[in-house]
Amino acid sequence: MPKFMDVHSGFVGVTADELNAAHDADLKIEGEEGVHFASAWLDPVAGKVFCLSTGPNREAVMRIHERAGHPTTEVYEIASEV
Amino acid sequence: MPKFMDVHSGFVGVTADELNAAHDADLKIEGEEGVHFASAWLDPVAGKVFCLSTGPNREAVMRIHERAGHPTTEVYEIASEV
Repeated sequence: MPKFMDVHSGFVGVTADELNAAHDADLKIEGEEGVHFASAWLDPVAGKVFCLSTGPNREAVMRIHERAGHPTTEVYEIASEV
Repeated sequence: MPKFMDVHSGFVGVTADELNAAHDADLKIEGEEGVHFASAWLDPVAGKVFCLSTGPNREAVMRIHERAGHPTTEVYEIASEV
């Protein structure tokens, strides 16, 4: 299953609770697209969130994030990791 | 120990072997700054690499990447993860 890293911008001042709530919103519907969001990392000063996921394709990842209320078009397919 | 996500751009067409070699170059000297690069993810189509690390501060992460031959100023300090 392909793996993806996606990036959200503009999340300045977001709290850990808000990150958890956003992640839970993804988890609640991700199965409908065969996606799974494994991890998310937040920098609330720069306003960046990085999400690591698996899924069938970039579009499926984008659809879940959009339906969960935090759309992004910055989704990268991971070919290699170390 | 603070955790960081950093982003490299312009790595279009980089191979898995080249990613491994770049990561090894970091590992070889990271101890001198108290940094550890835990994981790196490559999208060779978009030319992006994401590195997850721990270290004392952003500057230490930047110095190791620069000395290893792949500088970036895009280093985000992670306040929360899920």
